[in-house]
Amino acid sequence: MRSPVPDYLAEVLEACAADTSGANASYIPQLAQADSDQLGVAIATLTGDVHAAGDTDVEFTIQSISKPFVHALALRDRGLSAVLDKIDVEPSGEAFNELSLEDGTARPSNPMINAGAITATTLVGEPGSSLEERWERIHAGLSAFAGRDLTVDEPVFESELATAHRNLAIAHMLRGHEIITDDPEEAVRIYTRQCSLRVTTRDLAMMAATLANGGVQPVTGQEVVSPSVVRQVLSVMTTCGMYDSAGDWVSTVGLPAKSGVAGGIIGALPGQVGLAVFSPRLDEHGASVRGIQVFERLSREMGLHLMEVAAPARSVMRQSPGVDPEDDEPTHVYTLQGSLQFAGVEEVLRTLVAEPPEVEQVVLDLTHVHSLNRVARRMLLEAVRRLTLDGHTVRLLDPEEVLPDPVAGGGIRPEVLQE
Amino acid sequence: MRSPVPDYLAEVLEACAADTSGANASYIPQLAQADSDQLGVAIATLTGDVHAAGDTDVEFTIQSISKPFVHALALRDRGLSAVLDKIDVEPSGEAFNELSLEDGTARPSNPMINAGAITATTLVGEPGSSLEERWERIHAGLSAFAGRDLTVDEPVFESELATAHRNLAIAHMLRGHEIITDDPEEAVRIYTRQCSLRVTTRDLAMMAATLANGGVQPVTGQEVVSPSVVRQVLSVMTTCGMYDSAGDWVSTVGLPAKSGVAGGIIGALPGQVGLAVFSPRLDEHGASVRGIQVFERLSREMGLHLMEVAAPARSVMRQSPGVDPEDDEPTHVYTLQGSLQFAGVEEVLRTLVAEPPEVEQVVLDLTHVHSLNRVARRMLLEAVRRLTLDGHTVRLLDPEEVLPDPVAGGGIRPEVLQE
Amino acid sequence: MRSPVPDYLAEVLEACAADTSGANASYIPQLAQADSDQLGVAIATLTGDVHAAGDTDVEFTIQSISKPFVHALALRDRGLSAVLDKIDVEPSGEAFNELSLEDGTARPSNPMINAGAITATTLVGEPGSSLEERWERIHAGLSAFAGRDLTVDEPVFESELATAHRNLAIAHMLRGHEIITDDPEEAVRIYTRQCSLRVTTRDLAMMAATLANGGVQPVTGQEVVSPSVVRQVLSVMTTCGMYDSAGDWVSTVGLPAKSGVAGGIIGALPGQVGLAVFSPRLDEHGASVRGIQVFERLSREMGLHLMEVAAPARSVMRQSPGVDPEDDEPTHVYTLQGSLQFAGVEEVLRTLVAEPPEVEQVVLDLTHVHSLNRVARRMLLEAVRRLTLDGHTVRLLDPEEVLPDPVAGGGIRPEVLQE
Amino acid sequence: MRSPVPDYLAEVLEACAADTSGANASYIPQLAQADSDQLGVAIATLTGDVHAAGDTDVEFTIQSISKPFVHALALRDRGLSAVLDKIDVEPSGEAFNELSLEDGTARPSNPMINAGAITATTLVGEPGSSLEERWERIHAGLSAFAGRDLTVDEPVFESELATAHRNLAIAHMLRGHEIITDDPEEAVRIYTRQCSLRVTTRDLAMMAATLANGGVQPVTGQEVVSPSVVRQVLSVMTTCGMYDSAGDWVSTVGLPAKSGVAGGIIGALPGQVGLAVFSPRLDEHGASVRGIQVFERLSREMGLHLMEVAAPARSVMRQSPGVDPEDDEPTHVYTLQGSLQFAGVEEVLRTLVAEPPEVEQVVLDLTHVHSLNRVARRMLLEAVRRLTLDGHTVRLLDPEEVLPDPVAGGGIRPEVLQE
Repeated sequence: MRSPVPDYLAEVLEACAADTSGANASYIPQLAQADSDQLGVAIATLTGDVHAAGDTDVEFTIQSISKPFVHALALRDRGLSAVLDKIDVEPSGEAFNELSLEDGTARPSNPMINAGAITATTLVGEPGSSLEERWERIHAGLSAFAGRDLTVDEPVFESELATAHRNLAIAHMLRGHEIITDDPEEAVRIYTRQCSLRVTTRDLAMMAATLANGGVQPVTGQEVVSPSVVRQVLSVMTTCGMYDSAGDWVSTVGLPAKSGVAGGIIGALPGQVGLAVFSPRLDEHGASVRGIQVFERLSREMGLHLMEVAAPARSVMRQSPGVDPEDDEPTHVYTLQGSLQFAGVEEVLRTLVAEPPEVEQVVLDLTHVHSLNRVARRMLLEAVRRLTLDGHTVRLLDPEEVLPDPVAGGGIRPEVLQE
Repeated sequence: MRSPVPDYLAEVLEACAADTSGANASYIPQLAQADSDQLGVAIATLTGDVHAAGDTDVEFTIQSISKPFVHALALRDRGLSAVLDKIDVEPSGEAFNELSLEDGTARPSNPMINAGAITATTLVGEPGSSLEERWERIHAGLSAFAGRDLTVDEPVFESELATAHRNLAIAHMLRGHEIITDDPEEAVRIYTRQCSLRVTTRDLAMMAATLANGGVQPVTGQEVVSPSVVRQVLSVMTTCGMYDSAGDWVSTVGLPAKSGVAGGIIGALPGQVGLAVFSPRLDEHGASVRGIQVFERLSREMGLHLMEVAAPARSVMRQSPGVDPEDDEPTHVYTLQGSLQFAGVEEVLRTLVAEPPEVEQVVLDLTHVHSLNRVARRMLLEAVRRLTLDGHTVRLLDPEEVLPDPVAGGGIRPEVLQE
Repeated sequence: MRSPVPDYLAEVLEACAADTSGANASYIPQLAQADSDQLGVAIATLTGDVHAAGDTDVEFTIQSISKPFVHALALRDRGLSAVLDKIDVEPSGEAFNELSLEDGTARPSNPMINAGAITATTLVGEPGSSLEERWERIHAGLSAFAGRDLTVDEPVFESELATAHRNLAIAHMLRGHEIITDDPEEAVRIYTRQCSLRVTTRDLAMMAATLANGGVQPVTGQEVVSPSVVRQVLSVMTTCGMYDSAGDWVSTVGLPAKSGVAGGIIGALPGQVGLAVFSPRLDEHGASVRGIQVFERLSREMGLHLMEVAAPARSVMRQSPGVDPEDDEPTHVYTLQGSLQFAGVEEVLRTLVAEPPEVEQVVLDLTHVHSLNRVARRMLLEAVRRLTLDGHTVRLLDPEEVLPDPVAGGGIRPEVLQE
Repeated sequence: MRSPVPDYLAEVLEACAADTSGANASYIPQLAQADSDQLGVAIATLTGDVHAAGDTDVEFTIQSISKPFVHALALRDRGLSAVLDKIDVEPSGEAFNELSLEDGTARPSNPMINAGAITATTLVGEPGSSLEERWERIHAGLSAFAGRDLTVDEPVFESELATAHRNLAIAHMLRGHEIITDDPEEAVRIYTRQCSLRVTTRDLAMMAATLANGGVQPVTGQEVVSPSVVRQVLSVMTTCGMYDSAGDWVSTVGLPAKSGVAGGIIGALPGQVGLAVFSPRLDEHGASVRGIQVFERLSREMGLHLMEVAAPARSVMRQSPGVDPEDDEPTHVYTLQGSLQFAGVEEVLRTLVAEPPEVEQVVLDLTHVHSLNRVARRMLLEAVRRLTLDGHTVRLLDPEEVLPDPVAGGGIRPEVLQE
């Protein structure tokens, strides 16, 4: 059997290829000269598999898509509080290259606009790092997200640096407000260099998948950043990643995302997949025209929208009176299934409250439980505790250890059956 | 057994009660006089159960929390396109009562600021509805979300209307730009009336649960609005619901939400629960101080953050060679489980591609599948089609019909086994 | 002999008539329907003579040209300090109908934008005046500036009032900030009514001449407002009268001025003349296209620019030794001439210091002195005092009493000769 | 006799010295360390005399007061149109160091804010001038205004250059918009250097007097810039010289002016005097607290306000029938006097129209005419022409040639009598 996923992706590309509106970024010769018809899409799973269609092995510069990853590195190296001191996380309603800073604190509005991104660049590594150390750390970090050693497109770098007037203006302003303490010219140099790293659409999908996977690179297994860093980065991508069309993006696509002027866009669905699209022609907000179309189609057809309410879930619990095979005691078995979050466990608790088990022996069968989040685990253990206090003997059937180390409050520890 | 949920909620309240910072809204005497120490929290499940702690039966005015619901009614009555023509969905980075409109179109930035909310109010019902018809429709709609007939707090209404200078300014400006076509005084009158509806924290939790449930009121079972309307409303709440601290809210709480100046805040986790908190003292953004604390705590402890990547999922599939009990044919059984979305089904497909079944008979056992979203269903049926074309006989074991009407492309329809 | 002034004005009109760019104000039917080709210019002297050319007897509505005059009435009725409490005097760099108010105080930026003008309207008369009293006072005041009873164009008034959404928005906002305390609807009603007063180009020239004349209507002789009010009004017209092109106007025309959307523009040269032009087609700032051209030409050709440095003045003083005809005493006569301001008198003093008179008798001949301002008078009297203390006998030859009541410090009073 | 002017100035200083509010500019150590109590005032006449009181020989850095003079040099070197292409002349309503540029053109709002001033600096000299040439030209130009060779305060220069982050931000932004084509670092270097030139209060008064004198340095007699350049510069100083308090300044002082952060303020009254004040403590707009007080007092007491309407002028003309001493013919003599501008000559014309001379011989006696501006000359010659065409013989008595080369239209040339 051939996987239907690449076929599906090819279909999506075909449907979106017809739109030739927009234009390549013009302010850098190398971007202007890129083949405007290029179009590629890739989906990377959390197991490290990549489904791709179109021009997904073409290298182009990462540009602003570097921003969330460097923001992540800054959070990793300095911590949330230190980064928030210098960069706010509010959508600004303005374009990516705006110069305005927050009244009072002079912080850039968020790390997705250039002012915030340049600031984030200066927060990677130790305070007082040398230019080389800082660059090395950024280069290593972005390569770790991608799972391969990325290289700089030197002509693009030189070309962008020569015309980086606006970013220099921003950096000097940041320096004037003491938001950055590095030399402004050096800050812009590293920032421009990070934007000039060459990536493929596959690379970007993998980088996005690393975010979707809680910071662990799916192929190399390296934890590039922690889950709490990822949560912060994805939150900011949600509200600020698409600049002044962030609200429209959240409504129509509904995924944390980031675009770059070379034509790339990434999206990440937490716990599911990383996605990337590439097509050079940009709309007036500086985002790839066909890239947006592909994302809108994938979101709609694949149900990726974060606000999509899935079809009503089936009941997570079945129950059956039974007999313990070993000692012949009457036993009430509660079979749980699916991915248990608050709502599911709440249903279990509600049933236990409404119709308490009528025999002493109780088994919670977790064989078919697919995953449990924190609150589900806690509530389940609390149920064990309360049942125990009510005089029941509670045992867990948990052959795959979905509920490891099951100690409930008061030191109550139920017996765990393997089958 | 007693449910641990109310105990947990009571604990949360206790932890947050100590903070007495902030102050009641001062511009309306009735709000200023409210007992500042009141504090309540409620969680409503999609089955209509409500867990509550604290002052959850106290009535207060809904104020700005009416905005997402009236926005929903406007979307229902006029459709997405007509509403977008008049109200954009971009975060504005400004306060709730700003007067600025979008350059060019003069649209309010989003339906959560007053300008957008007043516009939404005028879009409920048919164009040309009378003042009474429009009010009746809004009143009925908000009551339907709550599942009970809400009443107006007449003293608050009169008091707010008498000092509604800024909203009148906004309405006249909207009228001048032909964003609204109603009489500005009437528009403000209805808007103020909708803000003066009395609700309890329980009501708000139930209203939020109706959104989390895709538009269906959990208790009455009424589909107040459609799933697509809900998706739009929750998207806008995510980026704009907390005004100029939207980014901070998404980072720290990570739920679509809305606050009101009487001290209420709601949040909705799609497919899971609706939440509401009430405490009158407000911060400088006009949101309840303790309300925010309670939400931050619930989000952190209950894992409600949308960007929270759950613990790595267990494999969704097991496989075992077997023998068909009826005809003794060798049969390969694939047992699927859990909530299947793209990532899960992709894993199934990948296995089928990498290690195709070696015998002709194939069974997909869906007994333990908890839910399937659209793309999962489509990909599963495509797998059935491709396996069939490869010469396999595919049967589904689906006693609870999680995959109803399983017609794959090319008219291929697998046999469905009941057990 | 026929006066060359009207001929000159006709020439100017002829030169400017060719430009048919711009368009009538469109938002009021009556303005849109006005004959776009109309063109008139009038110059009123401080003696009340009017030179006119073109369509100077056509009546049109005064519109925003009412603003400086109502501002003057507010200053007269409430005083500078009370008016400044409510309306700032800073150019805003924005359009006439902007809604933004000053941070902190919420004052409108200046009385020439609508927000400031509506506020000024509410400051005419006593606090707490009835609607009728206030209107009567404004109507009487503007008529006093014009020197005739002005009447309201009722169709324009009704038409503007029906579409006054933006001004209502402004007025409600002002009420919300307690900048105005009147009912916002009433404030807009009076403001719209004042804008609907009918004037001719001649009337406007006379109103401007009243300002140029220090507040005294040249024909009726009535002091409508005081010189200090006029100074404030002309100052504000200079920096704010032409809205967002104020700087360009000061550079190219160099006169305090005010435009109205019916096509009128006034200008006032303090101590010299009042000017008015009328032509209905407007530029993008809402000012008459040909009106601006006429003003630019008049300013350039007639040397009206305030920053025009006149040709170097001839010496203001001649001196000659002489003999007193009465007593045959040797006498030194200083003959002063021209308009004496600081610079001129300073020259006189300098000479007296450098070359003190060598005889005891000194005569200051003021026969040819044309005017003296305050500082010139004071310095001249101080010179008399110092010469007297140095032992001279000083006499003034002042047949036309340009230096009335010549008491110098220390009670020194020189003899005044009549010829 | 001792001149009363210095005594008066000393009195003014004494009255203003008590106010010790405000604080030295803090961002440059050298400015912060200046003796805050210093206070000086100087008035320079158009004859080059300077009256001074207080600390008028102390040197301090010129800072922003260099802006109008460098703007003047740019206008001289490139012409009005080329300068307007790069710098607008509108008040911005914002602070001196704002970064915002005009929508569309990206021009700085005016040459008094830093963005405009830095741009002006790059427009001095030929396009493509070297750094040294440009600096030399600016240094020579400012020295020419002062009438002496000014020197740079090197410590202040180095100190300001080291912290010129904001100006570097501005310059890079200007370079990005191609408003400036120089290297941004070099532009800021020269700009900072020009701001570091050392001047005394006397120097500043003399520089201001050069503007008041139409561009001719009163002492050296050098025409540094042309009258049309001066008109433009004084116009811009009027609307933009005091930044965001320009309107207040025009209302209360009424003179074109410019302040600097070292504590200097200059003012110029066209055709009259140049003024300068120095005192280091600044208000929140960055202007000298006591400097403003001194200017307000001088303006009020000396009648320097541009909008001050002088006391009604005496009639400019007397007439008397007479007899020609040479030929005994009856002759009508019109004796004109004072400074003739439009209003005065208009009065003459009006009389000639109303009461035409009854005899053939007419003499216009200009002996006591103090000055004539362009329009007055033209109108007088037109009167000569019309009288001649009406059959009169017109002769001018003009011993001091106030009306040189008196050719009227149609080649009519009246005889000129010397006495």
